[in-house]
Amino acid sequence: MASQRSVEMRTNVLHRHDEVAASLRARFERTGTHVVNMVSSPGTGKTTLLTQMLTTMVERRLGVAALVGDCATDNDARRIAESGAPVRQIVTEGLCHLEVSMIEQHLDGWDLAGIEFLFIENVGNLVCPSSFDLGETTRMVLLSVTEGEDKPLKYPQMFHSSELAVITKTDLAAPCEFDRAAALANIDAVHPGLAVFETSKRDSASIDRLVDYIVAERRRSCEPLPTS
Amino acid sequence: MASQRSVEMRTNVLHRHDEVAASLRARFERTGTHVVNMVSSPGTGKTTLLTQMLTTMVERRLGVAALVGDCATDNDARRIAESGAPVRQIVTEGLCHLEVSMIEQHLDGWDLAGIEFLFIENVGNLVCPSSFDLGETTRMVLLSVTEGEDKPLKYPQMFHSSELAVITKTDLAAPCEFDRAAALANIDAVHPGLAVFETSKRDSASIDRLVDYIVAERRRSCEPLPTS
Repeated sequence: MASQRSVEMRTNVLHRHDEVAASLRARFERTGTHVVNMVSSPGTGKTTLLTQMLTTMVERRLGVAALVGDCATDNDARRIAESGAPVRQIVTEGLCHLEVSMIEQHLDGWDLAGIEFLFIENVGNLVCPSSFDLGETTRMVLLSVTEGEDKPLKYPQMFHSSELAVITKTDLAAPCEFDRAAALANIDAVHPGLAVFETSKRDSASIDRLVDYIVAERRRSCEPLPTS
Repeated sequence: MASQRSVEMRTNVLHRHDEVAASLRARFERTGTHVVNMVSSPGTGKTTLLTQMLTTMVERRLGVAALVGDCATDNDARRIAESGAPVRQIVTEGLCHLEVSMIEQHLDGWDLAGIEFLFIENVGNLVCPSSFDLGETTRMVLLSVTEGEDKPLKYPQMFHSSELAVITKTDLAAPCEFDRAAALANIDAVHPGLAVFETSKRDSASIDRLVDYIVAERRRSCEPLPTS
C-alpha cells in the first residue's frame, strides 16, 4: 500500500524521533535518572505491578515518579497515585503508543535531579511501542501467565528490543495451565540471555526482588566506578 | 510530530483502503459470504475460540474458512486447521494490523460461493485494527476475564466500532475475581446495546450459542425476505 515517498517520509519522522530520544536519554544520564519503559499487552497487570513497586520504593525513601499512557481515561494515574509517588497521565486520544515528545512535555516542571527512578507505563500494545525509543534506560516487557506461552514467538520484536522481562500473575499459573518451562524457552529463543523475573500481586517478596534488581541496575549504570 | 503533508498522505492512504474494503464487501455480499473480523488483545483466546467454532460448524456441514493474521509464526493456522476447515496464515512481518489488500490476496483461488462463513483472526492488538475495515460483515471484539473489566473504557474505539462482543475464559472468572457486572456496564457505556456473549473453552454449550447467533446473523443479512 505504501508508496516509496510515504516510506521515506515515515523513515524521516522516525529518524527525528530517535534524535529527540537520544537527547532526552543524555538529559536523564546527567541527572542520574534511571528510566524504565513498561510495555505489554492490555491487561497483563502493568498498573498493579507499578503501584506495588512504587509503594515499596516510596517506603525505601527512593526518589520515584511515573508517567502513564492510555488511549483514554485517567483511571490508571489515579490508581498509581495511591502509592504516594508523583504521577502524571498521558492520554494519547487513540494513538497506539507513547512518543518521546509526549514524555518531554509531561516532564515539564518536575526536577529530574530528585527523580532517581522514572517509570513510564506505555499504552497496552505488544506491537507498536517496540518501534518508539522513549529515552529509557531499560525496556521492561510484561507477559502474564493468562496470555499463553507462545507470545514471545508471535511478537518477537518487543521481546527482542527489551532489556528485562517480567512474567506476571503467577498466582494464576495453575488454573491457566501455564507451562512455565515453555514460556522461558520461548523468551530465550527470541532474546537469548534476557533477564526474567516472575511476580504475583499476592507475593510481596516477588515485588521486592524486582525492585532490588532495578535499584542495582541504576547503581551499575549511574554511579562512577570506585577509584583505587 | 506529523507534518501537514504526511497527515494528508495518511488520509489518502486510508481513503484508498476504505474503497478497496467497500469493493470487497460488495463481493462478499454477492456470494453470500458472512465475514467475521475477530479483534482483541494478544492472549484473549481468539485462536482457541475460532478452532472450537469452526469444529462445530464443520460438524453442522456449514461452508467455513479462516484467514489468520500474526506478526510472526504460522502456529495459529496449524492449530486452527485441526478443525477441518480450510485456513490460511497471513504473516504481517511486524505490521500491527491486517489490511484489506492482504485479505484480497489470500482469498486467491478460493471459491467464495462455497464459503458461507469466513472468519478473519486479526493481529492481537486492541488499538490499531479498529481503524482498518476489512470488508467484514461483523467485527467481533473479545475481552477475556483475565484482562480486567476496565478495558472497554481504555480502548473505546475498538468496542465502539464492533457489532458483537465476546467475554472469553469465563471458567477463570473466580480466580481472577472478575466483576462481570462492571464489565457489562463498561461495554454498555462505550457501545450501548452491543450484543454480548460469554464463552469458556470448557463449556461447549457456550460455543454453540455463539455459533447459533452467527448463523442467524447470516440468515438475516443474506437471505431474501419471504414473499407472502
